[in-house]
Amino acid sequence: MSRFIHDDFMLTNEAARSLYHENAEGLPIIDYHCHLNPQQIAEDIRFRDISDLWLSGDHYKWRALRANGVAEKYVTGDAPAWEKFEKWAETVPYTMRNPLYHWTHIELMRTFGIEKTLSPATAREIFEECNSMLAQPGFSAKGLIRKFNVEAICTTDDPVDDLRWHKKIAEEPFGTKVLPTWRPDKAIAIENPAAYKDYVEKLGEAADMEIRTYSDMVEALRKRHLYFEMAGCRLSDHGLDTFHAADYTESEIEAIFSKVMSGQAPDAEELEKFRSAGLHDLAVMDAESGWAQQFHMGVIRNNRSSLMRSFGPDAGTDSILDLQCAEAGNRFFDRLDSEGKLAKTILYCLNPKDVETVITMAYNFNDGSIPGKMQYGSGWWFLDQEDGMRKQMNALSVLGLLPRFVGMLTDSRSFVSYTRHEYFRRILCDLIGADIENGKLPSGEMERISQMVKDISYYNAKNYFNF
Amino acid sequence: MSRFIHDDFMLTNEAARSLYHENAEGLPIIDYHCHLNPQQIAEDIRFRDISDLWLSGDHYKWRALRANGVAEKYVTGDAPAWEKFEKWAETVPYTMRNPLYHWTHIELMRTFGIEKTLSPATAREIFEECNSMLAQPGFSAKGLIRKFNVEAICTTDDPVDDLRWHKKIAEEPFGTKVLPTWRPDKAIAIENPAAYKDYVEKLGEAADMEIRTYSDMVEALRKRHLYFEMAGCRLSDHGLDTFHAADYTESEIEAIFSKVMSGQAPDAEELEKFRSAGLHDLAVMDAESGWAQQFHMGVIRNNRSSLMRSFGPDAGTDSILDLQCAEAGNRFFDRLDSEGKLAKTILYCLNPKDVETVITMAYNFNDGSIPGKMQYGSGWWFLDQEDGMRKQMNALSVLGLLPRFVGMLTDSRSFVSYTRHEYFRRILCDLIGADIENGKLPSGEMERISQMVKDISYYNAKNYFNF
Amino acid sequence: MSRFIHDDFMLTNEAARSLYHENAEGLPIIDYHCHLNPQQIAEDIRFRDISDLWLSGDHYKWRALRANGVAEKYVTGDAPAWEKFEKWAETVPYTMRNPLYHWTHIELMRTFGIEKTLSPATAREIFEECNSMLAQPGFSAKGLIRKFNVEAICTTDDPVDDLRWHKKIAEEPFGTKVLPTWRPDKAIAIENPAAYKDYVEKLGEAADMEIRTYSDMVEALRKRHLYFEMAGCRLSDHGLDTFHAADYTESEIEAIFSKVMSGQAPDAEELEKFRSAGLHDLAVMDAESGWAQQFHMGVIRNNRSSLMRSFGPDAGTDSILDLQCAEAGNRFFDRLDSEGKLAKTILYCLNPKDVETVITMAYNFNDGSIPGKMQYGSGWWFLDQEDGMRKQMNALSVLGLLPRFVGMLTDSRSFVSYTRHEYFRRILCDLIGADIENGKLPSGEMERISQMVKDISYYNAKNYFNF
Repeated sequence: MSRFIHDDFMLTNEAARSLYHENAEGLPIIDYHCHLNPQQIAEDIRFRDISDLWLSGDHYKWRALRANGVAEKYVTGDAPAWEKFEKWAETVPYTMRNPLYHWTHIELMRTFGIEKTLSPATAREIFEECNSMLAQPGFSAKGLIRKFNVEAICTTDDPVDDLRWHKKIAEEPFGTKVLPTWRPDKAIAIENPAAYKDYVEKLGEAADMEIRTYSDMVEALRKRHLYFEMAGCRLSDHGLDTFHAADYTESEIEAIFSKVMSGQAPDAEELEKFRSAGLHDLAVMDAESGWAQQFHMGVIRNNRSSLMRSFGPDAGTDSILDLQCAEAGNRFFDRLDSEGKLAKTILYCLNPKDVETVITMAYNFNDGSIPGKMQYGSGWWFLDQEDGMRKQMNALSVLGLLPRFVGMLTDSRSFVSYTRHEYFRRILCDLIGADIENGKLPSGEMERISQMVKDISYYNAKNYFNF
Repeated sequence: MSRFIHDDFMLTNEAARSLYHENAEGLPIIDYHCHLNPQQIAEDIRFRDISDLWLSGDHYKWRALRANGVAEKYVTGDAPAWEKFEKWAETVPYTMRNPLYHWTHIELMRTFGIEKTLSPATAREIFEECNSMLAQPGFSAKGLIRKFNVEAICTTDDPVDDLRWHKKIAEEPFGTKVLPTWRPDKAIAIENPAAYKDYVEKLGEAADMEIRTYSDMVEALRKRHLYFEMAGCRLSDHGLDTFHAADYTESEIEAIFSKVMSGQAPDAEELEKFRSAGLHDLAVMDAESGWAQQFHMGVIRNNRSSLMRSFGPDAGTDSILDLQCAEAGNRFFDRLDSEGKLAKTILYCLNPKDVETVITMAYNFNDGSIPGKMQYGSGWWFLDQEDGMRKQMNALSVLGLLPRFVGMLTDSRSFVSYTRHEYFRRILCDLIGADIENGKLPSGEMERISQMVKDISYYNAKNYFNF
Repeated sequence: MSRFIHDDFMLTNEAARSLYHENAEGLPIIDYHCHLNPQQIAEDIRFRDISDLWLSGDHYKWRALRANGVAEKYVTGDAPAWEKFEKWAETVPYTMRNPLYHWTHIELMRTFGIEKTLSPATAREIFEECNSMLAQPGFSAKGLIRKFNVEAICTTDDPVDDLRWHKKIAEEPFGTKVLPTWRPDKAIAIENPAAYKDYVEKLGEAADMEIRTYSDMVEALRKRHLYFEMAGCRLSDHGLDTFHAADYTESEIEAIFSKVMSGQAPDAEELEKFRSAGLHDLAVMDAESGWAQQFHMGVIRNNRSSLMRSFGPDAGTDSILDLQCAEAGNRFFDRLDSEGKLAKTILYCLNPKDVETVITMAYNFNDGSIPGKMQYGSGWWFLDQEDGMRKQMNALSVLGLLPRFVGMLTDSRSFVSYTRHEYFRRILCDLIGADIENGKLPSGEMERISQMVKDISYYNAKNYFNF
């Protein structure tokens, strides 16, 4: 009986095996979007046990546990580490065909060298083996990052963040760049006036100025944008329901800002105008700094309010939203293009129905200035699995230029998710290998095809972001 | 030349063949959603001929006939049985790659042992062979149900139905449970005030009470809900365009009810509020009784009004609707969850664009109380075919827990559609077998994988519904 | 090392190879929808060079060039032919997996007999070889059409067109019918009153009458419709965002027409009513003439306004639109059906999310009068590639009758796009061949299956359009 995670895992044809082992396998990782906590890296934290590493913050696993009939006590509750792990081990066999099944076993293999599959029968043994290894050198935050040959990491940070942990990391180099990413969602989140007012005050403090108007707020954001730039930031990120590109005037936006700061909730039209203005002004900053901007769209969050009340956000009750995006999205990018203020852009869309709409929209705005300027990003969140990656790469191939794709990212809170880059590269090679074997790519062009694999695995990101 | 419907039909890999023959093939059928007429079972009816069995009520075949240029006389008209069958036999070769082509030949094989393919050349011979068999013992309604090893059948019934035929069936047991399903669509269908008033009167009679208010109507429905429960009902079913979860007050709903009962049509906002209230109150009843609730959504019905006028509904002119569902759907389930009134739920969605939206929405509300509480149902109607089933199972796999899936149902009006369970099981095994052969599922876990196949084929439904 | 474009290119199974070579390969082409310029055919033009043939009007290639970082000068600008070709040759290796990669090499092979793959290394050689051949007999417009065995071509023409070039072609027959197609989009494009007024004036001149009312305009269109019919036209075509089927009265439409003709822009409701009326009245003309009507829907055009200003429309900045279509579409066709005025219809939809919605909608209105009356057309524009074709044929198969499908069209402005029919036929045979090899189609029915391949490749279009 062969091992599950073996050398040729996911590589179902000869060309794929050769492409992977000769081109993709050994390259470093550029993880240009994740949610690692920079403090944990700076402090080079250790994990109490495998439950701490795996189960303390992973809402993918929480959803699976609940769906498998496991009570909240063992999910986000206060059950002991072993009991939580036991419940997870009972659930793992029920995740067959879900990415969690592959992730679990690749992570066991690559992090701990464990070849067994996790189930109630192996739970205790694996629990103890992992815990014992986690106590050893090389299994701290930085140790894990080094183990996976990570060249650069981009975290996700609020404009008011002082980036102290990024600075501390930079002062004690360990071979991996850890850079901040500018995520200014709260700066335009006027739905909740009280929370917004608090945020604007914090922003004013961070920028060392008083914010009395929308125009002041933009000025404060510009100061913080420059502060992030000084800390090595080269990327922004925006979480959207969909695009917003309504007409507005400056005075309308100032009036909406005043209204919200005085504690009144905006109406639907005001919300639309304000979001349109805010997104535009933020995009202009990115263009002026030569950054790449990311847009993650199509999520509806915290849908189970009982859990939102008892636990808080990010509890594993977010799902896919189904709004329209073509008209507003095109208007949004067209205005930036017309003003000469369109930054390099990566679009991610959670709803697979929109993949083709979004890729063709993005490609309207390639202007010949930079190869692959407008990107459609790798399968995100629920789409970060084999089917989702294949659909993303197939759609990008037929509607755009796959060889210019900047490739994989983890989008993860975990220090062992780097295995997803391996998983992605295997799928990429399998996809392209099959084309070679079926004669859809010419076998006479192996040099170009090999370079394409290397580029998507590593070099495209390196050249595009230029960290 | 090999037979078309042979032992390994649809099983394209070795692991699939072994999984199917060793695990799935012999299990009984639980057909938890169909549209069989309970009177036909109670009376153990016989079929005049194969046209009566196949062509008298099957709008799938009617659509195919019309698309093949066959006049309405031979579709829903008064042409003789042989002439209708002849037209169908001419059309069958033009249904290649449509599920009708496979269904036709599996039904011929499993019901009648006929191995020939149906075409004009074989039409007369097959017509006579089938008719002669239909006259024999074992080809009555109950005979066919027994032939296919059906353990339980859930029909689809209106709250005003007296369930006399279900009672009669129960009094003369023949080895298969036949249970009613609560389908209360008409109780909230206020679009047509005259028809609604009539319905409310019938409901009042059935519940033996006078209905003067919305609150009375809910009370009458509760009485009928209990009546259905006494008759063994454990499932409800709702046909929706999309979800409705607007805010409303009790007094608003009472006012809308009065308005409609007085003969005035509701406006769009009133319709939305009333549907929101009605769907909610019906869902609460299901939760309080511990039933499973089903939602079928995304249909636009009776679109060809010339045929609606001349023939009536269900003429084969229904198609896929394309509304949004994420925001209202999440609000709908969140309210039930917050109130502790969320029943076991199965969602079906006719528009394939919404599959991922709906699965991720459903999984927001798994609460750990029951394994697989929130289900995404098998490919429905237009999606009940190989591609549709594969997409449903693949999406459910990557976004949820396939091993907890309650599996196949026929949703059919025909006594020979049980072959669709065989068809489903073959596709399930083919899907999973391919994963084993490609190393995506570990060959060392065959016991678990075999159990998964058995569970999805039979045991999950048995445990989930607990008839 | 084998040739890239070899005899069995894209034919990955034995049954596919046999189906293709024995049935599809040798059949003539009926290209029932394209955008060739009839003047270029009438004048039997020659091409200055391969850049003229390939790069002067192809917005697919322009998008790829821009995405590859090529400046506009080499795209739509005034760079010399060789420099443009050089940029294209640099870009081609980056189009791997995009249809452009296959199209490029099939066109080189079939038009010029060139077996090399295009890249910077081969660019000069291929440039000169092509240019030298383009100067030879047989490479003129008509020469190329004959080379590809094209039986009929339908161009796309405005109602005001005098069709002089079609007449000239008819007077000098060269073995291929070249017929006009009626494309009356401008006759209902009231969004821009000034442009609309100009158009109505031209229409009046063409119809030799004064247009003072909407009713006059319809009369003028009827005269032009007859004029097109006399010139051999049997097809209309409509470019839509989505369907429109609002209620309206004649007097409302006349008032909207007057308002627009007086220079005032219509509001949203007026626009919707006017489009509803116009589309309906145009559809009635097609039914009364026994034509087939085509609807192309789901595009958002000219999204990059900087390029619209500097270059004009069709610059390669069009993308996929994401509106709803089921409710309006069904109402639109139902009204025509009720009035007995529903023509043969082919629907094309650019947004793949709508494929199933649109096929099931179309099939509601098959009335048994003509086999395959309601068609869902081949993968269009961004969907005209292997994945898109497979999805279109798979969806049509499971939701309709694939054997009645009228098959491929080029939709192209280029004289070498006929290779796309070969590409389509190879994919068709590969699809069906795989079904035979997997036992999903019966190997005992090869005669019927072979006929299906011939029908979809050629005979269905021949019978359906009856040019």
